[in-house]
Amino acid sequence: MLKEEYNERIDYLFDSDLKIIQSSEVFSFSIDAVLLAKFVGLPITRGKIIDLCTGNGAVALMMSLRTKAKITGVEIQSRLADMATRSIALNGLEEQVDVYCEDIKKVVKRVGFHQFDTVTCNPPYFSERQTPNKNPNRSLAIARHEIYLTLEEAIHVSSQLVKQRGKVAFVHRPERLGEMLELMPLYRLTPKRIQFVYPKQGKDANIMLVEAIKDGRQGIKVLPPLFVYDEEGQYTKELLTLASHRS
Amino acid sequence: MLKEEYNERIDYLFDSDLKIIQSSEVFSFSIDAVLLAKFVGLPITRGKIIDLCTGNGAVALMMSLRTKAKITGVEIQSRLADMATRSIALNGLEEQVDVYCEDIKKVVKRVGFHQFDTVTCNPPYFSERQTPNKNPNRSLAIARHEIYLTLEEAIHVSSQLVKQRGKVAFVHRPERLGEMLELMPLYRLTPKRIQFVYPKQGKDANIMLVEAIKDGRQGIKVLPPLFVYDEEGQYTKELLTLASHRS
Repeated sequence: MLKEEYNERIDYLFDSDLKIIQSSEVFSFSIDAVLLAKFVGLPITRGKIIDLCTGNGAVALMMSLRTKAKITGVEIQSRLADMATRSIALNGLEEQVDVYCEDIKKVVKRVGFHQFDTVTCNPPYFSERQTPNKNPNRSLAIARHEIYLTLEEAIHVSSQLVKQRGKVAFVHRPERLGEMLELMPLYRLTPKRIQFVYPKQGKDANIMLVEAIKDGRQGIKVLPPLFVYDEEGQYTKELLTLASHRS
Repeated sequence: MLKEEYNERIDYLFDSDLKIIQSSEVFSFSIDAVLLAKFVGLPITRGKIIDLCTGNGAVALMMSLRTKAKITGVEIQSRLADMATRSIALNGLEEQVDVYCEDIKKVVKRVGFHQFDTVTCNPPYFSERQTPNKNPNRSLAIARHEIYLTLEEAIHVSSQLVKQRGKVAFVHRPERLGEMLELMPLYRLTPKRIQFVYPKQGKDANIMLVEAIKDGRQGIKVLPPLFVYDEEGQYTKELLTLASHRS
């Protein structure tokens, strides 16, 4: 199951019983993936969900705890897609979750337009031009920088994939809030629910969760703020409650 | 000083020593005005500030605690503008603060383009079409509904008034976040700082503060969340600290 030559290991997916194959050589899941999987509105008993930029599959795996709907992950990097596929098998989720190794800009030809109840996406956060942070590790750079995918492209593709009145949810950095809310309406995605996540009390937000509805009515709800750590540097109760939410 | 026939009274402006003339027959200041006056970046020793939709002058008066710059309030309703003018006199602030009774869409002709370091605005929150909430009291309706001024017009005027690299700050409802962030860039205002205010822990935000810079660089900071009331229904320490901030 593990490819030793790639320095792979098996971790638990946050505080769940799910296992996930990781490697220090490529992108590992972060709290962002957990938050997105818990935040987004999902069909519960049937329907279809697609997770774009799935990486090693954290969001797709985590969502399987909340729904019986079919979940498809799409990842451009074959090494990550392969890890995700093996993690799915490791958890016995082959019937519910699968992964395509493909550029998300091309996936609509394969899966069809407007087929999904929910689209999730944890895209690269940094513009390609933000070179100071650009990683010499090519795999990390592709996951973190807009090399193969810009925010606008991710929004465009999401809009092509989602059904009328379906949901599209992104996790991103608050720095990009302006662009996100400008771009979504250009592709008929109406932002409806936003939640900001703060590392702890008194700090600026460092993660944002945005859910839009295809052709929804204008009007945004800003959900209660979420703090990741308490004063002692432990995960807050609210985060653990959220993260152990199983419905 | 008070016009008895209008049922006027003198209140303290939140927890400050400033006095403000109010009447139950017209729009009274709310916590929103206090928050805006404390949130916005101001020139401290010199410069010019303009407060649009100033009502009975709460934002303009409150800002005088933080700056020696000249402050001009603009209010379309003569009764409110008159109350603001008398409140300014009541606090002995005639040298620093004045009020024009004018439609803000026309005020640029009087004060000139691009003359202000900071523009503040607490505009009507509800679209004119939102009739269920429309107030039978005409004065309240004008203050609360977009009868004489839409959000887009308020943003447009702010952009005409502010200097290059100057600041424009709005207080509004989070429901309008999408429109705010779509409209500002159309008038060369780049949103830079946003703060969400929550009635208490666990509730959705009900106030948002947005500061933009004219021709600023893209990239938004989402400041720590602010809670108005604690579990006992008392003002939170953070709100009182903020509200008693005197610099």
